[in-house]
Amino acid sequence: MTGDLPSELLEQAVQQMNTLPGIGRKTSIRLTLNLLRRSESEVEAFTNSFLKLKKEVHFCRYCHTISDTEVCSICSSHSRDKHTVCVVEDIQDVLAIENTGQYNGVYHVLGGVISPMDGVGPKDIEVDSLLQRLNNEPVTEIIFALPATMEGDTTCFFINRQIQEQAADTNIKVSQIARGIAVGNEPQYTDEITLGRAILNRHTL
Amino acid sequence: MTGDLPSELLEQAVQQMNTLPGIGRKTSIRLTLNLLRRSESEVEAFTNSFLKLKKEVHFCRYCHTISDTEVCSICSSHSRDKHTVCVVEDIQDVLAIENTGQYNGVYHVLGGVISPMDGVGPKDIEVDSLLQRLNNEPVTEIIFALPATMEGDTTCFFINRQIQEQAADTNIKVSQIARGIAVGNEPQYTDEITLGRAILNRHTL
Repeated sequence: MTGDLPSELLEQAVQQMNTLPGIGRKTSIRLTLNLLRRSESEVEAFTNSFLKLKKEVHFCRYCHTISDTEVCSICSSHSRDKHTVCVVEDIQDVLAIENTGQYNGVYHVLGGVISPMDGVGPKDIEVDSLLQRLNNEPVTEIIFALPATMEGDTTCFFINRQIQEQAADTNIKVSQIARGIAVGNEPQYTDEITLGRAILNRHTL
Repeated sequence: MTGDLPSELLEQAVQQMNTLPGIGRKTSIRLTLNLLRRSESEVEAFTNSFLKLKKEVHFCRYCHTISDTEVCSICSSHSRDKHTVCVVEDIQDVLAIENTGQYNGVYHVLGGVISPMDGVGPKDIEVDSLLQRLNNEPVTEIIFALPATMEGDTTCFFINRQIQEQAADTNIKVSQIARGIAVGNEPQYTDEITLGRAILNRHTL
């Protein structure tokens, strides 16, 4: 049920809601009506939070994650290993890796992956700033934890080539997080490509 | 993955997004970051649409649907049957019924159903205005198309009792849309309660 809405004001608001990823028209109508049924001050609180975020947000000057301060809490922490930099696509990956409890290095948030189809090139994401960090900071290992997709792999290989050219005289280690079967999963339920990679990248016990 | 966000500004915005029905925390983070990656003018266009809707929206003075004008396009149309009023919960029901192409009367949008658990009583929805319409307009039939739930039925019976008391001397017909098996469905795949109602409310061929 979409239909023509009887109000142009409502139509405009629904179309804006519809710009959110994964939010279809029916859901957009439902969410917009939910907002409309609130008080004016509640709607203002809702909208102001996004305006305030956009106007006042900082990005950490080292790793480019979202921060309220110039340097984020991870980069400014004395207990983190500043020699190891984990390269991720976005902040949700930082949160996910932090949740594992298995990583004590710092991060570099690209803000996206190279994707010609979406018009995203190396200059649109934080590639140059990563290469600059290798000059300025005592980095000994870079770990790529980008999406295991074509765009993620392309981005990884592109950046690695830049690193090899720039840091040819250093002993910097460059690695990528493993592809394999998920813990709890079984070979017969794993897709062939992942399973093939799991066999190729087997590790000795 | 929720975790503690490294930015309080981001946390506040995510919590606001989380107030939308059916939008969980992970989705709220994803949607908020999508907004953050837009230009400032795009974020302003997004937020302004809801503020504008809230500040400038009208509700039709007859049926209380959302309208940009004092009287909505259905109520002001000369080709609609003003003697028949279909009572619905909200605007999405108006759209759904309009999409059937099977109804040419007018509507009355209650804006909710009676639900003590949610603190919604008869005074919180457009019940009195419906009863007032029976005095002011030449209504000969009222059709209840509320949700087929306990709250919907309660609301229907409550309003019907008021109608019977108030319009005892008129010949107003009061009906409710049929419960039954959905077109294309089969008895064995229909839940027992609906199937039982379908048998009880069978119509002669």
